[in-house]
Amino acid sequence: MSAAPLSLTPALQQQLRDWLQEDIGRGDLSAAALRPGRCRAHWISKAQGVFCGGPLLDFVFRELDQSASVELLVADGDAVTPGQRLLNVEAEAAALVAAERTALNLAMRLSGIATATARLVAELEGSGVRLADTRKTTPGLRVLEKYAVRCGGGLNHRLGLDDAAMLKENHLAWAGGVAAAIAAVRSGAPWPARVIVEAETAAEAQAAIEAGADGVLLDEFSPEALLELVPQLRALTSRPVVLEASGVQPEQLRAYAATGLDLISTSAPVTRSSWLDLSMRFSN
Amino acid sequence: MSAAPLSLTPALQQQLRDWLQEDIGRGDLSAAALRPGRCRAHWISKAQGVFCGGPLLDFVFRELDQSASVELLVADGDAVTPGQRLLNVEAEAAALVAAERTALNLAMRLSGIATATARLVAELEGSGVRLADTRKTTPGLRVLEKYAVRCGGGLNHRLGLDDAAMLKENHLAWAGGVAAAIAAVRSGAPWPARVIVEAETAAEAQAAIEAGADGVLLDEFSPEALLELVPQLRALTSRPVVLEASGVQPEQLRAYAATGLDLISTSAPVTRSSWLDLSMRFSN
Amino acid sequence: MSAAPLSLTPALQQQLRDWLQEDIGRGDLSAAALRPGRCRAHWISKAQGVFCGGPLLDFVFRELDQSASVELLVADGDAVTPGQRLLNVEAEAAALVAAERTALNLAMRLSGIATATARLVAELEGSGVRLADTRKTTPGLRVLEKYAVRCGGGLNHRLGLDDAAMLKENHLAWAGGVAAAIAAVRSGAPWPARVIVEAETAAEAQAAIEAGADGVLLDEFSPEALLELVPQLRALTSRPVVLEASGVQPEQLRAYAATGLDLISTSAPVTRSSWLDLSMRFSN
Amino acid sequence: MSAAPLSLTPALQQQLRDWLQEDIGRGDLSAAALRPGRCRAHWISKAQGVFCGGPLLDFVFRELDQSASVELLVADGDAVTPGQRLLNVEAEAAALVAAERTALNLAMRLSGIATATARLVAELEGSGVRLADTRKTTPGLRVLEKYAVRCGGGLNHRLGLDDAAMLKENHLAWAGGVAAAIAAVRSGAPWPARVIVEAETAAEAQAAIEAGADGVLLDEFSPEALLELVPQLRALTSRPVVLEASGVQPEQLRAYAATGLDLISTSAPVTRSSWLDLSMRFSN
Amino acid sequence: MSAAPLSLTPALQQQLRDWLQEDIGRGDLSAAALRPGRCRAHWISKAQGVFCGGPLLDFVFRELDQSASVELLVADGDAVTPGQRLLNVEAEAAALVAAERTALNLAMRLSGIATATARLVAELEGSGVRLADTRKTTPGLRVLEKYAVRCGGGLNHRLGLDDAAMLKENHLAWAGGVAAAIAAVRSGAPWPARVIVEAETAAEAQAAIEAGADGVLLDEFSPEALLELVPQLRALTSRPVVLEASGVQPEQLRAYAATGLDLISTSAPVTRSSWLDLSMRFSN
Amino acid sequence: MSAAPLSLTPALQQQLRDWLQEDIGRGDLSAAALRPGRCRAHWISKAQGVFCGGPLLDFVFRELDQSASVELLVADGDAVTPGQRLLNVEAEAAALVAAERTALNLAMRLSGIATATARLVAELEGSGVRLADTRKTTPGLRVLEKYAVRCGGGLNHRLGLDDAAMLKENHLAWAGGVAAAIAAVRSGAPWPARVIVEAETAAEAQAAIEAGADGVLLDEFSPEALLELVPQLRALTSRPVVLEASGVQPEQLRAYAATGLDLISTSAPVTRSSWLDLSMRFSN
Repeated sequence: MSAAPLSLTPALQQQLRDWLQEDIGRGDLSAAALRPGRCRAHWISKAQGVFCGGPLLDFVFRELDQSASVELLVADGDAVTPGQRLLNVEAEAAALVAAERTALNLAMRLSGIATATARLVAELEGSGVRLADTRKTTPGLRVLEKYAVRCGGGLNHRLGLDDAAMLKENHLAWAGGVAAAIAAVRSGAPWPARVIVEAETAAEAQAAIEAGADGVLLDEFSPEALLELVPQLRALTSRPVVLEASGVQPEQLRAYAATGLDLISTSAPVTRSSWLDLSMRFSN
Repeated sequence: MSAAPLSLTPALQQQLRDWLQEDIGRGDLSAAALRPGRCRAHWISKAQGVFCGGPLLDFVFRELDQSASVELLVADGDAVTPGQRLLNVEAEAAALVAAERTALNLAMRLSGIATATARLVAELEGSGVRLADTRKTTPGLRVLEKYAVRCGGGLNHRLGLDDAAMLKENHLAWAGGVAAAIAAVRSGAPWPARVIVEAETAAEAQAAIEAGADGVLLDEFSPEALLELVPQLRALTSRPVVLEASGVQPEQLRAYAATGLDLISTSAPVTRSSWLDLSMRFSN
Repeated sequence: MSAAPLSLTPALQQQLRDWLQEDIGRGDLSAAALRPGRCRAHWISKAQGVFCGGPLLDFVFRELDQSASVELLVADGDAVTPGQRLLNVEAEAAALVAAERTALNLAMRLSGIATATARLVAELEGSGVRLADTRKTTPGLRVLEKYAVRCGGGLNHRLGLDDAAMLKENHLAWAGGVAAAIAAVRSGAPWPARVIVEAETAAEAQAAIEAGADGVLLDEFSPEALLELVPQLRALTSRPVVLEASGVQPEQLRAYAATGLDLISTSAPVTRSSWLDLSMRFSN
Repeated sequence: MSAAPLSLTPALQQQLRDWLQEDIGRGDLSAAALRPGRCRAHWISKAQGVFCGGPLLDFVFRELDQSASVELLVADGDAVTPGQRLLNVEAEAAALVAAERTALNLAMRLSGIATATARLVAELEGSGVRLADTRKTTPGLRVLEKYAVRCGGGLNHRLGLDDAAMLKENHLAWAGGVAAAIAAVRSGAPWPARVIVEAETAAEAQAAIEAGADGVLLDEFSPEALLELVPQLRALTSRPVVLEASGVQPEQLRAYAATGLDLISTSAPVTRSSWLDLSMRFSN
Repeated sequence: MSAAPLSLTPALQQQLRDWLQEDIGRGDLSAAALRPGRCRAHWISKAQGVFCGGPLLDFVFRELDQSASVELLVADGDAVTPGQRLLNVEAEAAALVAAERTALNLAMRLSGIATATARLVAELEGSGVRLADTRKTTPGLRVLEKYAVRCGGGLNHRLGLDDAAMLKENHLAWAGGVAAAIAAVRSGAPWPARVIVEAETAAEAQAAIEAGADGVLLDEFSPEALLELVPQLRALTSRPVVLEASGVQPEQLRAYAATGLDLISTSAPVTRSSWLDLSMRFSN
Repeated sequence: MSAAPLSLTPALQQQLRDWLQEDIGRGDLSAAALRPGRCRAHWISKAQGVFCGGPLLDFVFRELDQSASVELLVADGDAVTPGQRLLNVEAEAAALVAAERTALNLAMRLSGIATATARLVAELEGSGVRLADTRKTTPGLRVLEKYAVRCGGGLNHRLGLDDAAMLKENHLAWAGGVAAAIAAVRSGAPWPARVIVEAETAAEAQAAIEAGADGVLLDEFSPEALLELVPQLRALTSRPVVLEASGVQPEQLRAYAATGLDLISTSAPVTRSSWLDLSMRFSN
């Protein structure tokens, strides 16, 4: 699977530095027992899953040793199996040891998300329905965890409060109804911003579409209800409106996929996944 | 359960600001649909578990509205049940909405860790053996995730590379044996720093204790092997040496606890836990 | 005119601190000549225009004196006239003097943009065509300058490279055509992200719409050409596609507005405007 | 014209990173449509003016691609004409596209200021009077905008509140007169710091010189008044005192220059200039 | 002695936060043994000297407890004696304990400098010669250490490389002589910037004055040589030129003061002083 | 003497940048008088002492000129004599001049501490007692000043409030006695954290050991008192307990060393030392 590109922005570079710092603190106390000079190590996977995080690692090791080099043997999004060698790395021993935990923690967390995403995406295979993520992400890791979802075959929902507007019960109540709420948002938002409405009843969903919503999030509807509702909503407009279900349990994915929805959004790959077990071994 | 105190250091305050910023980005697009003025909300738990993260929340909401106030109804470390009200919060509507996701993400993640820790700790009840964490923590969240482990009844292991030295296979090889490695570390380390040695064989464990290690991490030994080894190691010295097992599966905790160890360290509460489901409801 | 809300995000708060610091440096040398104690001042407009920047000022003065207070007499987006009093401010003399220049520079720059925008927007009045901005903004001021455009009645285009995709000549060439380029972007982008194509010929514009573009930027077409082209493009699809012209001189705005376009985008309010002249006067 | 050197200080390097980040945000959505590999581009001027900002560009592109290289074909301060090629740049396509807007915005803004400065400076040619800037600069760009003024042939006034003291009406009133104010400032200021007094009447100017001011800013005097006043002030002391006029309209520059002043200070190149139109073209 | 004002700039506020963080790290381990609730403490001097640093302390304690309050009983620049109570502070016990060391370290270091300065200044009393500092300051503490010098009665020399130019042997050699060097600097420097020349011979000093230097630093001249040279240099020009000696040992201060110089600059109060011994005592 | 390794952590790298920035400010005004092109310089010691700070210098010069190179001729911890050449450096003239002061200030300060430490350590030679430092360090320089102590042969005490707990009079009073205080701290602290108790009487020292303290700081005891007390304390337990004296005057070191203590802690090398005089000379 070809992974979507990851942009190593100045902000992300700074985070990688901060994360190294978090572990190193005032200096690695064990460094005095290390021999100076370059040494080599490699990573292996200890479990089956989808790898993610490779493009970050070169920067991480080089922050502590400018001459470090990382050779990736797998691409982000690739399936990996137990015992598989993932990368080779060469650096000063002190840098290898000091960066090891941070680098592994990042890749294990992201690979865990990619792996969990891929499992759910596999459930939807052939249905034409995409699996999307949510804003339930670990503080500080939004961009990376959403990238991991893409590497697992998922589709990103909005990345923050500022790249699309989601109107919930309270917005509608305070603004005086869905039409007023959408109008208020559109008047101040950049024109490319989509407006999505969270609906808890069929009537709310209908009203949202009639008021011009770009997407409707159908929250906690049953598959049966959606089977009936989705075509009704489609019939309301020739505009493309994205219909999305949330509150779906993994075991119900197929039932929901059969309703003609566009998306099923879930935080499960982020909030209910385990880290993929990876480890670093010194080559000499 | 009384939770260990959490220090809202300047660095942590800055992280809380950064995490809000991550979600808000260039501004909450939905704010235009909100009514000005203060409003009230409360949080409820939607699952059974151990709450964690409360002392962070006042700062989070006040960063976006200086007059915001949070009233905690539970303390960190308290058991909570589905439907239980956890806190009341009052703030400008725009601040409440903009901070909601970040605040919940933090508390859900930390409560998930506290909950998972408490479950494992319960397994060890009465055994006198403590459950300890590891350096496998989410980048950026080391201090908070370790705090969550404490709230769940666990004991923290070292917080980074700089507050205790752990000597592994490579240190020993490069330094020329365990005695040389320990000496090298002690000569440069602050005197209060403990030196711990990771041992993969009984002979290594013995050598470590004879060389003056403060702790020995017994990696991937079976309970049977430890039943025999632990008393042998205890007999080597009158110094207190902390004996710790790692690589333990949750279902084996009781078997390991019976071996006379001091600690069982595991990353499971961090790497294999789900977030505790919490939600915010507007009160008016 | 009701101004769209401005979010005083943690990042913006930090910028305001940095901007004060830039002017104060190692400390205001004139402070030794100031008398301790609170004093009052007010701002007046020395020119006709549209005010912008008010909600930033309280934070700016309070950063240097926590007890400072700013009373705004006009709202952002309000028309102001020469001699009009805009606000009252009260603070320690040293804080008033040290923050004055930074506060005025901000408000004068933003008000200049709002004023220039309002003039162009007035040209379009009644046409149904909106004036939009571009990414030509002063480094560091993107969010604020775009906010000033909103205060002047303009519509924001995307705020950065990450909240909508704009495909230009090179993207199309490298990706192997407009359909391939759009597909490549959509596969990795969050679903709410719009894809806009910059077209230099009628054929390119048509191809973009057929390939599913959400918007087409028609670059340097004449009004005559657009009069013919716009209906042809509208006829290609029932999807709403935003048609936008760029490269328009201010004196041609009306001619372009008559072509049935949705938007005219221009950097002129940012790149060709003068600051609005404002000044602070001490009240005692 | 030989441009004064620009110091790429650590603070400026950080700003360049922040400004890239501002545009890139969570990542360039269009990157998926770009082909990997290096490509070449060049910049051309689309207008007549004075170029400024070149020495910043190498750092900007290299921040996103360490192997990027920029070949400058013109120096800062050089006059450029429409169609003139200004520089060649080679980098990964993704870096070229992601840095393009930030790099151009910087150079267009700074070149606009240099161009506007050069036009005013040309008015003063042969008069021996220098054109100086003010503290009216865009927040965050003080050092760069002042550098652009130098590149246009202007002279910098103080760079902030901390490298020279300017005493205004309020300082004089609060300190109990000009002599007391100057004494108060000198007692706490580094000895090299100049003390300048803003005078609104001839008597104030005289008093300032008698009290030992290093410079007198003559605010809103007519050319006629200055023709008479300047020699009177010069006669008061053998110390070199810098006499400076402010509040001068561009069309009056020659009249003011004839009065024997040392400096005319104006914010016009910063507050009333347009950006110089530059563009980047891909070479392949 | 009335101390010159200290500006608590945003940058200084951030440093105070960073310095607290440096000591607190991941959290004060002793906090668990503290009782919740406010408590009171006071500071006393354990030695004779000049106090400095008071205005920083309120910010320091309030960073860890917003309700903390500091009541200063002495002003910066005041002489203090052993046993003298300097301030009262009230805060949460955890904040008092966590901020204590950082606050004391700051005040002890700064008071040590003020004390050492005052001793040297006393040597010069009645001579009309001022004692000035240098750029030999502890990294990160430039502004504060220079402030401490002022509190001790000293005069600040330039604060950095950017608020006055000092031309040394190499500048003169590279620029092609003192006249060329001064001209090169003046052409690019803000007009208020002073140009100072370091001279190692009488001829160099004379050339500097003839070339228009604002100050001459006479490095390692004997008092006898200066007695002769100073009047010769004064006779060269009616411009005020600041004559300064450096490389002066404390015991020679009086001899140098008799030569008619303006300044004697020395790093001794910064590089050769001891901290003033202060301590905090809990009041209950 | 072999110096303990110094970790150039991301945080330390950022500090080095900040310290350069502090001196350079808005740019070195003298740069205009420098000739472009690389030049060479070297450092010499002007006094006898112990060198410290070398490994920082390459980073400092390279921050201003990526092609700069530093060749160290002495290692940290080496004794140096007046006139000894310490290092060669090659860089652009502008970078050499702009970084010179910051680099020297760092090395002079750190070498001064190493030198002062070495003198005290020499007093203890052969006694088996180690000299330890304290938390009295210059704000911002904790890690470096403690490193300088190591380079002078001293032993570091804890580095902050978070890597060991020190319980003082107030902790004991508030917690309800030493046993309760130790228990409270151990329950929340990472297991490797040592707990040290400050004792002012023999009874307090005894109680601390009986309550399980890892170390006892014996504050302001006389050598005579300690001669008697130390063996009594040693007899209380077979656990290794570190006995440490503080409040020791340099001239009493030998007397204290004879008491059988483990450590004597003193802030003197930090709070009562002079900088080591070093200077940079241009080689051409």
